[in-house]
Amino acid sequence: MPVCDTGRVSATRSTAAGKVLEILSTFGRECQSQTLSEIAQRTGLALSTAHRVVAELAAWGALERGEDGSWHVGLRLWEIASGCPRSQILRDVALPFMQDLYEATHENIQLAVREGTELVFVERIAGHRSVELVTMVGSRFPIGSTGMGRVLLAHAPQDIQEAVLDAPLRAWTPHTVTDPKTLRAQLDRIRREQVFVSDRQLSESTVAVAAPVRIGRTGPVGAALGIVIAARGASRARGLREPLLRAVHGISDELGRRARGAV
Amino acid sequence: MPVCDTGRVSATRSTAAGKVLEILSTFGRECQSQTLSEIAQRTGLALSTAHRVVAELAAWGALERGEDGSWHVGLRLWEIASGCPRSQILRDVALPFMQDLYEATHENIQLAVREGTELVFVERIAGHRSVELVTMVGSRFPIGSTGMGRVLLAHAPQDIQEAVLDAPLRAWTPHTVTDPKTLRAQLDRIRREQVFVSDRQLSESTVAVAAPVRIGRTGPVGAALGIVIAARGASRARGLREPLLRAVHGISDELGRRARGAV
Repeated sequence: MPVCDTGRVSATRSTAAGKVLEILSTFGRECQSQTLSEIAQRTGLALSTAHRVVAELAAWGALERGEDGSWHVGLRLWEIASGCPRSQILRDVALPFMQDLYEATHENIQLAVREGTELVFVERIAGHRSVELVTMVGSRFPIGSTGMGRVLLAHAPQDIQEAVLDAPLRAWTPHTVTDPKTLRAQLDRIRREQVFVSDRQLSESTVAVAAPVRIGRTGPVGAALGIVIAARGASRARGLREPLLRAVHGISDELGRRARGAV
Repeated sequence: MPVCDTGRVSATRSTAAGKVLEILSTFGRECQSQTLSEIAQRTGLALSTAHRVVAELAAWGALERGEDGSWHVGLRLWEIASGCPRSQILRDVALPFMQDLYEATHENIQLAVREGTELVFVERIAGHRSVELVTMVGSRFPIGSTGMGRVLLAHAPQDIQEAVLDAPLRAWTPHTVTDPKTLRAQLDRIRREQVFVSDRQLSESTVAVAAPVRIGRTGPVGAALGIVIAARGASRARGLREPLLRAVHGISDELGRRARGAV
């Protein structure tokens, strides 16, 4: 499990509601379990205050206590969050198409949405034979870092694109494109060609093939779908183009039908 | 989308933290989108109070506003909730085994955990060819109602079993076992035989084959895994016994390894 590196969340809000949200903020996919003192330290709340709010969250089921005494997110909060349309409804529509793609390839199939200048993975299918990844469901990455992120970036509003192109880009591997001019040309190509092959941009061991998921065949881009394969099998990437396009078109058509209220 | 029938949540808590939790409580898989007045009505909060707390939740990202002006759960809350060990970690371990099972059957593969006297579906794999179900990920059912629930009930603490057996059992179909004595015998059989075939107990159109997932091969039962097939193909249920057992053993072994800190 990754080390919690959420750091200290400054306790600028003085309302009780703010305290609830600050405490919840210290949890997440990268920080699943914390002691009460860690929670107090990360939120900047007094231990007695943290204790009181955690107890209230626990009574409601938002937090649960493990056998080792540390706190984690409770099932009740997860149930409520499972009504999030941008993850779950998209996921419901996409999953059968992702299954088809998985069965045809036995590789990692990932679905991600954009949140500002970051992307969030909302679903992944992986089998025993799929290459191991650094990403996981519920984790966030800078949008410029991954193949799926570049696809989302290419279709993002202009101000988001400029914000990403203006900021320094992190070189995750020696292959990561960090020059704004090269990236700008890459985004142009992504818009023209639909499918983008991202060669070892995030990790030396993986290649991603990604395409935009639209809401309706010609509607706005709502997500990106990607197949992530081992870099040593990269020659297969071109052959994944057609099955990936079939899947994104299937998802886009179904999302379009739902958006028009036809279902 | 099902009609929101959460009814009115009585506003017994006067704290601001309580108001946040009450508002969140009105959302979930069965109630994904609500107007501000609906939120106020269901929580019993004054419209002005509901407005203020919803604005705070929205500023933080726990709620988002749709194009029609109604409110739904935001991606940020979903991200935090994705650190819930009882859904996501279980899911991470189970998913490759569920994939194998899906590929061998092309039926619905479901994973559920017990929460008191109810069960919560935490994962489902379904393809285009799988039979349509009344259940969904993030939804709750009385534990006595479904095949997977009966498996969880058979392995639940004695007080939970007695609580369920003492209360009236709902007859979802003419086939639902509602007599406590028959159910008690059924629970005995489930403990002996491991795999349980639940014939049209929840819906006339489906048959479930379910088995317990333990934490370690002989450890406590932490979840139930089930295959749900169309009732017209029920003769195939017996043949699903072996692949289902292989999957639950694989998941149990891996959960046991993780619980011992070997991973």
